[in-house]
Amino acid sequence: MAQTGDDRDAKARSLDASLHEQLYYQLYSILFEDIVNGTYPVGEQIPSETELMERYSVSRATVRRSMEILVNNGLIVRRRGRGSQVVSSKPATALKSVGSCIKRTHPDRVVPVKRVVSAQIVGAEGTAARELGVEEGRELYRLERIRCSAGVPYYLETIYLTRDFAPNALDHDFSGESLRAYYANILHVRWTHARQRVSARAADARCAGLLGIAEGSAILSVDRTSFDHDDIAREYMTSLYRSDQFYLDMSLEA
Amino acid sequence: MAQTGDDRDAKARSLDASLHEQLYYQLYSILFEDIVNGTYPVGEQIPSETELMERYSVSRATVRRSMEILVNNGLIVRRRGRGSQVVSSKPATALKSVGSCIKRTHPDRVVPVKRVVSAQIVGAEGTAARELGVEEGRELYRLERIRCSAGVPYYLETIYLTRDFAPNALDHDFSGESLRAYYANILHVRWTHARQRVSARAADARCAGLLGIAEGSAILSVDRTSFDHDDIAREYMTSLYRSDQFYLDMSLEA
Repeated sequence: MAQTGDDRDAKARSLDASLHEQLYYQLYSILFEDIVNGTYPVGEQIPSETELMERYSVSRATVRRSMEILVNNGLIVRRRGRGSQVVSSKPATALKSVGSCIKRTHPDRVVPVKRVVSAQIVGAEGTAARELGVEEGRELYRLERIRCSAGVPYYLETIYLTRDFAPNALDHDFSGESLRAYYANILHVRWTHARQRVSARAADARCAGLLGIAEGSAILSVDRTSFDHDDIAREYMTSLYRSDQFYLDMSLEA
Repeated sequence: MAQTGDDRDAKARSLDASLHEQLYYQLYSILFEDIVNGTYPVGEQIPSETELMERYSVSRATVRRSMEILVNNGLIVRRRGRGSQVVSSKPATALKSVGSCIKRTHPDRVVPVKRVVSAQIVGAEGTAARELGVEEGRELYRLERIRCSAGVPYYLETIYLTRDFAPNALDHDFSGESLRAYYANILHVRWTHARQRVSARAADARCAGLLGIAEGSAILSVDRTSFDHDDIAREYMTSLYRSDQFYLDMSLEA
């Protein structure tokens, strides 16, 4: 009989005493990865000592030792009689991202052009409504732009602002005018933080048409929600980059 | 006659005096984006004042004013009689990446399994040789692993180490043993920094087969080169994530 996925998972539930590394380190590694990967999200509990002892057939001392490293790594806090709670998914000892930048794969010196695909008022829905923290149907200004260089389209960006935050946005032509200058000089917004989600996806027919690539091509997608000094989400932007033209460059430090 | 890409670029070379925003800000925006996107890389010069005056039909005062903002943003330094040199591609006023983490799109609590696809000594070539700073043909230890959960493969990682750095790597079974523990406890390496390149690509036949997805599917690719306390590149790793299972989560701050 072929080995199924479930068999394999069941097998992995036991640690391997023959390995060079200690059992506590094996258990620590499993829990570490599950916390970092979000299997055990921040705020939730990891299994109890007794549960881990049974699941991995190890002693309480082994479980405790692996927990200690998780505590030292700043990932969990232990509360007497109340189990261990995940408090961070970013280990204190891991390299931290200290900078990132979208870069051209093959930089050139051609002056780039921005083209407005559409600029209109739309009803909030889905991710844009959720990220901007507004109810569905709320009026949003939506701007779609393409950036080209030497006639080659590079990326498609879609920007959402609530209409009452940017009431005159439709009066501006953001093919020439800088959105950054509009934010700084007209809306007087100063960004304090943002969250960003980077993923790969297949280009749908419309995106492929606008970017001049085949439908289904891999594109690099960067979704960003930016917050102002009052901690209000003011801008939600999705940028779809041709993967043959752009990558995200990051530097990490201890 | 249809407008060609070159016509459009030629048109874009002139600034638009009718826009709300000042000419110096338009010019600043163009140069800003070109520096951030790597069109003008760190260490190189941007065009001279005279060149910019001619190219954009603006006064020397306008050029100087846009340069001043670039200087304030920490992107260029101006040297009397020697032009303006790019010194950073990361503007001081931009939001900075302060954390990043690969996250599961749909976290579950199944104990994950690592499976070794291959572990062998290979001759260095291409990106691995370049990133590890060794000549082509140098002996490298190469490990390919797949991570699965409930029988579903999630990502494929390929790790390269120089053989003389990790002479006994082949004696270890990294399907059970933790690579992190091996680095820390056996090789005694401490990572100080890393550079990382995140991109989208289409899965080739082999990768698609191993990850159980259709050939050509969009995958999220993370290439990382990690440096030890002697600033020597010790590990080059490429991780290919199924895009339906993983994304990169980033937080940015002012």
